[in-house]
Amino acid sequence: MNILIKDVAALLPDGTTPTLNIAIVDDRILSMGDVPHDFHADKTIDGTRHFAIPGLVNAHTHASMTLLRSYADDMKLMDWLQTMIWPIEAKLHSDDIYWGAMLAAVEMIRSGTTAFADMYGPDMDRVAEVTEVSGLRGVLARGLIGVAPDADKKLEENAALYETYHGAADGRITVMFGPHALYTCPPDYLKKIAQRAQQLGAEIHIHMSETVGEVESCLKDYGKRPFAHVESTGLFENGTIAAHCVHLDDEDFSIIKKHNIRIAHNPGSNMKLASGIAPVPRMLKEGICVALGTDGASSNNNLDMLDEVQLSALLHKVDTLDPLAVPALTAVKMGTEYGAQALSLKDVGQLVPGQKADIALFSMHGAEWTPCYNPVSLLAYSGKSSSVDTVIVNGKILMENRELKTLDEERILYEAQRTADRLTK
Amino acid sequence: MNILIKDVAALLPDGTTPTLNIAIVDDRILSMGDVPHDFHADKTIDGTRHFAIPGLVNAHTHASMTLLRSYADDMKLMDWLQTMIWPIEAKLHSDDIYWGAMLAAVEMIRSGTTAFADMYGPDMDRVAEVTEVSGLRGVLARGLIGVAPDADKKLEENAALYETYHGAADGRITVMFGPHALYTCPPDYLKKIAQRAQQLGAEIHIHMSETVGEVESCLKDYGKRPFAHVESTGLFENGTIAAHCVHLDDEDFSIIKKHNIRIAHNPGSNMKLASGIAPVPRMLKEGICVALGTDGASSNNNLDMLDEVQLSALLHKVDTLDPLAVPALTAVKMGTEYGAQALSLKDVGQLVPGQKADIALFSMHGAEWTPCYNPVSLLAYSGKSSSVDTVIVNGKILMENRELKTLDEERILYEAQRTADRLTK
Repeated sequence: MNILIKDVAALLPDGTTPTLNIAIVDDRILSMGDVPHDFHADKTIDGTRHFAIPGLVNAHTHASMTLLRSYADDMKLMDWLQTMIWPIEAKLHSDDIYWGAMLAAVEMIRSGTTAFADMYGPDMDRVAEVTEVSGLRGVLARGLIGVAPDADKKLEENAALYETYHGAADGRITVMFGPHALYTCPPDYLKKIAQRAQQLGAEIHIHMSETVGEVESCLKDYGKRPFAHVESTGLFENGTIAAHCVHLDDEDFSIIKKHNIRIAHNPGSNMKLASGIAPVPRMLKEGICVALGTDGASSNNNLDMLDEVQLSALLHKVDTLDPLAVPALTAVKMGTEYGAQALSLKDVGQLVPGQKADIALFSMHGAEWTPCYNPVSLLAYSGKSSSVDTVIVNGKILMENRELKTLDEERILYEAQRTADRLTK
Repeated sequence: MNILIKDVAALLPDGTTPTLNIAIVDDRILSMGDVPHDFHADKTIDGTRHFAIPGLVNAHTHASMTLLRSYADDMKLMDWLQTMIWPIEAKLHSDDIYWGAMLAAVEMIRSGTTAFADMYGPDMDRVAEVTEVSGLRGVLARGLIGVAPDADKKLEENAALYETYHGAADGRITVMFGPHALYTCPPDYLKKIAQRAQQLGAEIHIHMSETVGEVESCLKDYGKRPFAHVESTGLFENGTIAAHCVHLDDEDFSIIKKHNIRIAHNPGSNMKLASGIAPVPRMLKEGICVALGTDGASSNNNLDMLDEVQLSALLHKVDTLDPLAVPALTAVKMGTEYGAQALSLKDVGQLVPGQKADIALFSMHGAEWTPCYNPVSLLAYSGKSSSVDTVIVNGKILMENRELKTLDEERILYEAQRTADRLTK
């Protein structure tokens, strides 16, 4: 379908926000500016008083965990995991994974997210199903726990997920391998994952250096810090997104740069779980690709990427006592362009002719967008994801005027609550 | 008018959230629970799938500065003030103060704020006018700058504001004195303010210990830290809200406790301006009243109090590396009950029979509120102010189903943008 977005303020890669027309043909942006003479729109969207940005990219989440939102908060990490999260996760069925991911899809589309990197399981085929149906772009990984009795089975599930879904849904679904973390995956298991991923040409999505405890126990158990330890297993040879990366030293930085590891920074989760503050200004200065993620909804507790953009813009200023740290445009790019890079999404992340048409349209009609001296500042410091009214992914409209086009929202909210009721009965 | 809110989940002072009926007679809550037999409702609001909380209290803002939202961001403080903020503020007319405060009122009502403490000027009578018309509760102070040539005139304006408006609009308007800060008010001026406020029985609203620079220059100029210095002028004898209080030592804590000084914590502003992180967990532990404020929209950049609740719940966890610091209920109370205490609002801040009917109703129909295991957690960590659909102040409905009842929103947004265009022409 040919779509024309008329007279919209559009965020260009250089940070300027000219008012122009965006012409979309099939899954791609044809032009930005004047409408080409031979372009015929099947659908025209009035972009007046709207701000078009590349769709937000959630570079680290566990979508089905939205089912656990508000179930257990304000607890110490091990208490939280052992007495609340793990017991309830053990009760999840395949349909629960499905409705949890559906709930996540509703929340993501409503808040302007067009792509997400998910690590969870079992039954990641149900998340693939949700990705296919919802119209979102999904980078899926089966969470791999090497200390589990069925570790090898999990690894084969991840390989099967890759073989079945990598490149599926018109290329909207890609698959990575998802070793959970070095403290749940012994070195031999990490080596097996590295080899299996390499055979298939798959990349890796892993939690790294989230807490001080993780770094300390790695040093104690393996005589190395996390990055050096995992590097020695060959896991970083395949291309890697490392979530969190809160506690880094100079050697960690060298390894990250050597392997072009992309980082998914999760400020909301790191703050709520009191994990610490990642050295994001240094990462950016050293040219590392830093994306943003929400983490799961039981440690955030929402999937609102604009919150993460705003937190990243605020947190690093106060942490470094530098009001120029992570300025507005950088925070927005972490949530969009750098996110697409981090997930190896080809031709995604910028509003530029030739790129995939993944676009979030914010209505600027509201007090928090008024007056408008600078749309990028408004987006980073004042705007709300609730003002996203239209979302396009791969040239297809997933939400228009806040109406979801691909999902049955009432049914999904109902099933999610029903599942929660059953899980806690 | 008698209002009945039926079958609503209501946040009680003990943190429980039973589903009940709230009966309102005139400006007060008559009952919470079963509807009294002899109660006749003129208006019934369906509270199903809604969460009623005491209205949010913005304990520190500069309402008319919403006109400068997104005008100047990502700058160093003195650059920002000297090259951008002060020059544009010098161009503000009386009507600009009015439309700026009107824009703030729209934003506050829409996001569930029912009371605000404002420090600005000149023309604070225009802000009083906005408070009267909007139906909000306002605690107004004329900002006093002692180093200005018209310092005494400003002081008399503050006294006149008190005499004209303290207790006005059915008691919704109260007035305080607003010495800006110790670095803009020499000691003799602070003494004059203290005396004038004492004559009238007025309280004080002042910025205190916001930056390291303020503490250092106070030590250099007066040989004392800010709290000891200001205490010596007698200013704290009158009852005080101190905004920010980021940099405190043990002596500061003693002075704060000795004079029962209430603190307006502004996490968003402190983060954006890189001022530092206030020792809020210690304040709470020592029994100090800690409220929340947004500060002005040029240093935040919105007036969304739920953002401040959420930031306060997140920031102190990561700062102290304690996931139990500032739990959900405490953060919500800082934004509501403690805010009302801090502003000396009588019978405001709790959903309890006999209290003033200042209520924000959140629709819980949406993905970010699903599933609902714990409404307080949802509010503090996941909910959005955009789900506030009904707001009542002093028993009067200011917004119903997201429609503003007292303000002409379209006109206000138009006039605010027109003013901004004129100011930057």
